Amino acid sequence: MTATNRQLILKSRPKGLLAPGDLQLTESPLPELKGGQALAKVKYLSMDPTMRVWMVVDTYFPAVAIGDVMRAFGFAEIIESRHPDYKKGDRVTGFTGLQEYAIIDDSVKRQFQKVPKIPFVSDTVFLGVLGINGLTAFFGMEIPQAKKGETLVVSAAAGATGSIAGQIGKIQGCRVVGIAGSDEKCSWLTKDLGFDAAINYKLSNWKEKLAAATPSGIDINFENVGGDIMHTVLDRMNLFGRVVLCGLISGYTKGDPGLESFGTVLVKRLRVQGFIVIDFASRFMEAATQLGQWKMFGKLKDRETIVEGLEKAPDAINMLFTGGNIGKLIVKV
Amino acid sequence: MTATNRQLILKSRPKGLLAPGDLQLTESPLPELKGGQALAKVKYLSMDPTMRVWMVVDTYFPAVAIGDVMRAFGFAEIIESRHPDYKKGDRVTGFTGLQEYAIIDDSVKRQFQKVPKIPFVSDTVFLGVLGINGLTAFFGMEIPQAKKGETLVVSAAAGATGSIAGQIGKIQGCRVVGIAGSDEKCSWLTKDLGFDAAINYKLSNWKEKLAAATPSGIDINFENVGGDIMHTVLDRMNLFGRVVLCGLISGYTKGDPGLESFGTVLVKRLRVQGFIVIDFASRFMEAATQLGQWKMFGKLKDRETIVEGLEKAPDAINMLFTGGNIGKLIVKV
Repeated sequence: MTATNRQLILKSRPKGLLAPGDLQLTESPLPELKGGQALAKVKYLSMDPTMRVWMVVDTYFPAVAIGDVMRAFGFAEIIESRHPDYKKGDRVTGFTGLQEYAIIDDSVKRQFQKVPKIPFVSDTVFLGVLGINGLTAFFGMEIPQAKKGETLVVSAAAGATGSIAGQIGKIQGCRVVGIAGSDEKCSWLTKDLGFDAAINYKLSNWKEKLAAATPSGIDINFENVGGDIMHTVLDRMNLFGRVVLCGLISGYTKGDPGLESFGTVLVKRLRVQGFIVIDFASRFMEAATQLGQWKMFGKLKDRETIVEGLEKAPDAINMLFTGGNIGKLIVKV
Repeated sequence: MTATNRQLILKSRPKGLLAPGDLQLTESPLPELKGGQALAKVKYLSMDPTMRVWMVVDTYFPAVAIGDVMRAFGFAEIIESRHPDYKKGDRVTGFTGLQEYAIIDDSVKRQFQKVPKIPFVSDTVFLGVLGINGLTAFFGMEIPQAKKGETLVVSAAAGATGSIAGQIGKIQGCRVVGIAGSDEKCSWLTKDLGFDAAINYKLSNWKEKLAAATPSGIDINFENVGGDIMHTVLDRMNLFGRVVLCGLISGYTKGDPGLESFGTVLVKRLRVQGFIVIDFASRFMEAATQLGQWKMFGKLKDRETIVEGLEKAPDAINMLFTGGNIGKLIVKV
């Protein structure tokens, strides 16, 4: 191989939204493949709000080091292999990073997983409904142990995770209300996904609309946003409600973390469970099987926003925080 | 009876600490006892931070109405009865209010409970270790399902509830670290109550001391305070830690509620459970029996700060927020 590899390198830690130059596009020749290595051509990259977090702070992973290829989850195909476990044509998902080619060896092998070719289904499902978002929604919606007829409110409901969490809520028999940032998103939620109601939080009277859409209060909050949206939802929660704290994206691009009051949690005896899907890794296959069945039988619908070109990834990350995407946001490399 | 009844009436809702006149002492003649009524002489009044909350907002009880006798839990003795269920000499605990005499009839009867005379034990235990504080600590410490060897941190640890919660933590086999506001309080916690460590949060280096006292991190937080103290504790919590959110007293005298970040809850996958003891009312007798045994066998120690005179109750309430009491704060009427 004498191909070049284009990569997005973390050059500086963003303050708010990503500024030009925080991620820098570089080109370098691909090194010759050594024994024990496989070369994967990255086809699709998953754009996730957590990437913004990885740019600045340690979480369950250390923050990406300045000068390193930006961490990202992707779908790739093996195009050359000197590793016994991989052969040309194998398809994998895993932490490819924001680059055109990824090299897999034993040191990173456990970050990758082979995936099958499913007839009539786009490979991108492994980044969305059958991937990290589907798994997050699946395990997240186990936590509250929803009872039939309870009211579930999902924030960032038109996002990749929220849209699935809400549909799982319907499968579980909940009344499901989504919060999203445009009438188009809300219409998708109610008309296509079967949400009982959807509220556009950019309308000045959205709090009244949320109240009207949750006449019996809110029993479960699948929370992705934090800040004022979370506050408003908590205020309408019923005693002994459960909050699945999956994301706080309204704070990810702010210097200060989003501050909310624990007072409501106390007075309403809520249970707030912080949640990161990685803890459920041992059950991913079980969940993916269930998600796949639901998808096959039309119980789970998904939608993608696809941005073309690795060089567009920084803008794509920003879209997650400005509301630019509906459903799963993917960069096609 | 032609005795007069002294009462503390809520005249205005306090902004910060209680100001003179928020509770106004009044004297009025006791009305003649009617059929179906019993007259109770209030002996001791329990001073609890939640009283400050009752003065301003609805919780599980409506806020006290302006002009009403201030709500308070107390110990009283029946001195005259025209109610079939009470006889002279009966001893009760319940919502007596901040007054010298309370009239019990069927409309308020369920707010009162008869208590026995226990040899060698002060009647005030029914307001503390065998009362609302003991029950709160008992049920609150059921929530985290502590495992032997886990580290428990209790804030407001020298208060009536915190001091018992910490001792129950010891009974459960935890390493117990208390946070309190003076060296004297800390010394009581470690020397008398058997806490493994106690940190005076008024020392400038208290955060380093907390870190040193929790070398394996913190697994359980029995939280009574909120604000900076809670933040500091959450920062040291281990993954999958549990927070029993029992009180947020640092915010009770502020116009703004205490604001804390949910970010740590998410990243560390903590479980925060809002908790009010009233939900466990059906099991109070079971808990009081256990608490009584522990006390009898010396496994639970308590301490009281007693203030004499009903008219001192407003100052006593303020003491709860300025750190003036050690252990249970009681007004002797």
